[in-house]
Amino acid sequence: MVRVLGVDPGLTRCGLGVVDGGRGRSVSAVAVGVARTPPEDELPLRLRAVADEVERWMDRHRPEVVAIERVFSQHNVRTVMGTAQVSGVVALLAARRGLPVAFHTPSEVKAAISGSGRADKKQVTIMITKILGLAEAPKPADAADALALAVCHLWRAPMADRLAQAEARAAELARNHRARLKAAAKATGARDARS
Amino acid sequence: MVRVLGVDPGLTRCGLGVVDGGRGRSVSAVAVGVARTPPEDELPLRLRAVADEVERWMDRHRPEVVAIERVFSQHNVRTVMGTAQVSGVVALLAARRGLPVAFHTPSEVKAAISGSGRADKKQVTIMITKILGLAEAPKPADAADALALAVCHLWRAPMADRLAQAEARAAELARNHRARLKAAAKATGARDARS
Repeated sequence: MVRVLGVDPGLTRCGLGVVDGGRGRSVSAVAVGVARTPPEDELPLRLRAVADEVERWMDRHRPEVVAIERVFSQHNVRTVMGTAQVSGVVALLAARRGLPVAFHTPSEVKAAISGSGRADKKQVTIMITKILGLAEAPKPADAADALALAVCHLWRAPMADRLAQAEARAAELARNHRARLKAAAKATGARDARS
Repeated sequence: MVRVLGVDPGLTRCGLGVVDGGRGRSVSAVAVGVARTPPEDELPLRLRAVADEVERWMDRHRPEVVAIERVFSQHNVRTVMGTAQVSGVVALLAARRGLPVAFHTPSEVKAAISGSGRADKKQVTIMITKILGLAEAPKPADAADALALAVCHLWRAPMADRLAQAEARAAELARNHRARLKAAAKATGARDARS
């Protein structure tokens, strides 16, 4: 079992979702919510408030991995800056606890959850509610997104791991092959020297 | 005397400069340098490395204020995200130590140091070297920028403070004036009732 903390970074609302992943594609929701900070507060205080809440979630739920939504700057400039700052803060907190951090783009999350990279927020919420067998849809959308991010990570990670293992195995085979060639060349050389 | 830590945020090079401000416009450099992280490292590790170095500077130099360059997203998208993430991390570290944080834009810094918001990096380096009476120009430019940011904060802060005081005094006068008008109206009313 792997426990993932999904984080949809934001200053006004930071989505938080904890999901356990079991064998195959089995997943179950552990906790979901949002950290909110008042827009009228100063930025450093808002970052501290979000950081404190994220750390409370880390203490309470002991995730083994943190999955964060990758921020793009296409959108509103002001919002993106705050979002980037929160994502940096969350990555720092995870790194300081020795937790691995993975970033997933919104379209990766949508594709993993709904099969389409272009699903809208509503569809993602409907799908994640179904996938996790929740009695009702998580609200607000940021909370649902955080759960979707965690599930996306669980469903993508085995694929990424298998790929990494396959590459490592291929590299080992290549190494062994080279070593055998060398040994063969040496043996031939020795035989040649004897002859 | 006020001690300011200026931070020019960045992942590859984060400029750090400590400046003491005395009476009037007197300023003196305490320390200058950069925190560097290798671009091939993963983002969370890079953020942690910068954060650790910034905290070592805070421990060693005990600044009373932290001045951070305000990030804009006009520039290269990839770089800006990293810069925003570092600025968020530094603001968090300051907030967790109870240190006030101020953000200044690059043009505020240029205007404060050189008298022109459109001075180039080279001019800022030359001016800050002169202002702080340094034997040689701080290198790289990020280090010079961090010092310039700290000086900008020291030279702008008294103005900002005076403005805040003047506004508070004006508000108090307006309050008193309204109270006197109310009292006068009441007295007139009482006299009218008697007559």
